[in-house]
Amino acid sequence: MIQTDIIIIGAGPTGLFAVFEAGLLKLRCHIIDALPQPGGQLAELYPKKPIFDIPGYPSVGAGELVDNLMEQIKQFEPGFTLAEQAMTIDKQEDGTFIVTTNKGTQVHGKAVAIAGGLGSFEPRKPLIENIASYEEKGVEYFVKNPEQFRDKKIVIAGGGDSALDWSIFLAEVAAEVTLIHRRNEFRGALDSVDKVIELKKQGKINLVTPAEVVGIKGDGHVEAIVVEKEGETFDLATDYFIPLFGLSPKLGPIANWGLEIEKNAIKVDNALDYQTNIEGIYAIGDVNTYPGKLKLILCGFHEATLMCQSVYNKLNPGKKFVLKYTTVSGVDGFDGTRKEAEKAVVKAID
Amino acid sequence: MIQTDIIIIGAGPTGLFAVFEAGLLKLRCHIIDALPQPGGQLAELYPKKPIFDIPGYPSVGAGELVDNLMEQIKQFEPGFTLAEQAMTIDKQEDGTFIVTTNKGTQVHGKAVAIAGGLGSFEPRKPLIENIASYEEKGVEYFVKNPEQFRDKKIVIAGGGDSALDWSIFLAEVAAEVTLIHRRNEFRGALDSVDKVIELKKQGKINLVTPAEVVGIKGDGHVEAIVVEKEGETFDLATDYFIPLFGLSPKLGPIANWGLEIEKNAIKVDNALDYQTNIEGIYAIGDVNTYPGKLKLILCGFHEATLMCQSVYNKLNPGKKFVLKYTTVSGVDGFDGTRKEAEKAVVKAID
Ligand SMILES: Cc1cc2nc3c(=O)[nH]c(=O)nc-3n(C[C@H](O)[C@H](O)[C@H](O)COP(=O)(O)OP(=O)(O)OC[C@H]3O[C@@H](n4cnc5c(N)ncnc54)[C@H](O)[C@@H]3O)c2cc1C
Ligand SMILES: Cc1cc2nc3c(=O)[nH]c(=O)nc-3n(C[C@H](O)[C@H](O)[C@H](O)COP(=O)(O)OP(=O)(O)OC[C@H]3O[C@@H](n4cnc5c(N)ncnc54)[C@H](O)[C@@H]3O)c2cc1C
Repeated sequence: MIQTDIIIIGAGPTGLFAVFEAGLLKLRCHIIDALPQPGGQLAELYPKKPIFDIPGYPSVGAGELVDNLMEQIKQFEPGFTLAEQAMTIDKQEDGTFIVTTNKGTQVHGKAVAIAGGLGSFEPRKPLIENIASYEEKGVEYFVKNPEQFRDKKIVIAGGGDSALDWSIFLAEVAAEVTLIHRRNEFRGALDSVDKVIELKKQGKINLVTPAEVVGIKGDGHVEAIVVEKEGETFDLATDYFIPLFGLSPKLGPIANWGLEIEKNAIKVDNALDYQTNIEGIYAIGDVNTYPGKLKLILCGFHEATLMCQSVYNKLNPGKKFVLKYTTVSGVDGFDGTRKEAEKAVVKAID
Repeated sequence: MIQTDIIIIGAGPTGLFAVFEAGLLKLRCHIIDALPQPGGQLAELYPKKPIFDIPGYPSVGAGELVDNLMEQIKQFEPGFTLAEQAMTIDKQEDGTFIVTTNKGTQVHGKAVAIAGGLGSFEPRKPLIENIASYEEKGVEYFVKNPEQFRDKKIVIAGGGDSALDWSIFLAEVAAEVTLIHRRNEFRGALDSVDKVIELKKQGKINLVTPAEVVGIKGDGHVEAIVVEKEGETFDLATDYFIPLFGLSPKLGPIANWGLEIEKNAIKVDNALDYQTNIEGIYAIGDVNTYPGKLKLILCGFHEATLMCQSVYNKLNPGKKFVLKYTTVSGVDGFDGTRKEAEKAVVKAID
């Protein structure tokens, strides 16, 4: 079982920054996220778009902000369990917690911070009768590890940024890439659309439009898909079928953890530390609600910070509180690195 | 009288960022600060030092953060009254407010946000009997406008960064710069100490150490100072005497505004919007206190944001609340500029 101090559910900006504030207080974190990559909504929904209201950044790309947060927390060596959904939280007799994922991974920690945003992202699935029986047997709703597709035949379905961008990326990896969309028009960054046109010309992407995947065939694993194009249907041999129709967040398991839920969010005691009705379980970022709540990234940062202080105070009862400025005290990483301001010199002039 | 929507007292990071959040809600701000430059503690106490706990910045110089905030709020055209101290807040019968400074400047607005940090910075003054009678008559505790000293004789006293850096800067402006310190050792950035040594060699800075200024002479304006060096005293002719012995923040006038004060800070109702016991007056950033309060820059950003929402709701009763994402809605400046994300294209590929 994985051991840590704070179990963080959700690797969005709030969960990531919590690792930093915990680290300043010498607390270790392990993060669980249903998505294969960190960054939450920023990475999944708008990685290439600019954000204008991050304090101190007149403009920052959402993906760039996630990269910066990853760089900022690196020294505190967070553990990551990605592409797994946290299913249960079990409070132990000694007040500690065990969180278990849908793949059976277990994490044991002294406190839980739910930074679950709008919930775990779940793929919109195409309406193909037998699709469930091929999931993880050739049907993939995310690209978790591109190497999985090396020298394979793949079919991607969808008409947005993900479908375009993965087709481009996998054109260099897979043996054969087919992109199927029910219209001729694609919706994405101009760059991406142009690149797909280019790769099509070079014969590196097969484009089948306007068309739809209506069936899957294969014995225990995808071997072909059935395509319907302009009233006709035909089989197309493939090793993988990757429908990328977007992800929508669902509160999901969070609703079953005995927490007070209001308007699809977890009620917290905001006056102090964003703790829920269960002692030791906190909710921070978009996933919580309290009077005056704003679902903004900068609010999640503040909430994460107060949450960490509260955990620290609980784990160190009676210890006098001293706020340390990073500028003055520096930052000591768990990896042995130290960041600090240049010291002033004291020097005689004569 | 200056007219605005929100009168902000304090141009530290919290007050500055409030301008941005107010601007998103179409509210205008006017900022008053006792210091001659914006940035609060960051600009006055540690402009060259790095900060490591600004979310999304693995490291950022304090001065750089202030510059970035100024850039971020520029489009919302904040008014600034600098180098003046807010002395009184008068609530009008219609619920609006008039703030008056020590120089008689008056600002009229619909709400007041006190972002006064640890209070207004006041200079540590040397113990020279008649110094008060020469203030603004040759004795200056800040360098507000370097041009004031062009082609004049000046004496700077002090042994820290400010004394070093202003001696260096003014060596190019003034007719004659003398730096007096009671020890031979200076304490500052290595760069600055080296540069002073260099300028001394070039004869551009006169160094008098170990020595102290013990008197001031002149008829209505400084004409000379009295220096004590190794037991002897002598007069030194000068137009200006600039003692730079550091600034210390004093809550000052804030204590007289009828607000509930606790531990040198203003108590606020944090559950909602950081409002004080007087409706329409808010306290945000280091200047406020509530259970769980942390005096950190990132917390001030959050508090400023919730405060602006509260002001907006009060000024627009009954209007339905809609949170707008800057990424989605863009940012419309009062100066006619617009920032927005690049739109996705919809394009056919055939
Ligand atoms: C298009 C768009 C534009 C936006 N623009 C702005 C903007 O300009 N400024 C701004 O401040 N905000 C903006 N936002 C909102 C911002 O993205 C959110 O406030 C922010 O992402 C919240 O961060 P978070 O860390 O709380 O949650 P999220 O980013 O939602 O991350 C939560 C993570 O938790 C995971 N999770 C949930 N439940 C589980 C579970 N049971 N097991 C495992 N993992 C789980 C999810 O998979 C997800 O990755 C925008 C949002 C969108 C969609
Ligand atoms: C050496 C040092 C290192 C630090 N390091 C960090 C760090 O690493 N991370 C971090 O988060 N924080 C750090 N801090 C704390 C941080 O600087 C403060 O939290 C921050 O400055 C608070 O911002 P503010 O805008 O609330 O107030 P301030 O920055 O204090 O600004 C308040 C302003 O209000 C003005 N003012 C007050 N009263 C009046 C009045 N009556 N009239 C006119 N003007 C008035 C003052 O002159 C001042 O300019 C550090 C502080 C110091 C001193």
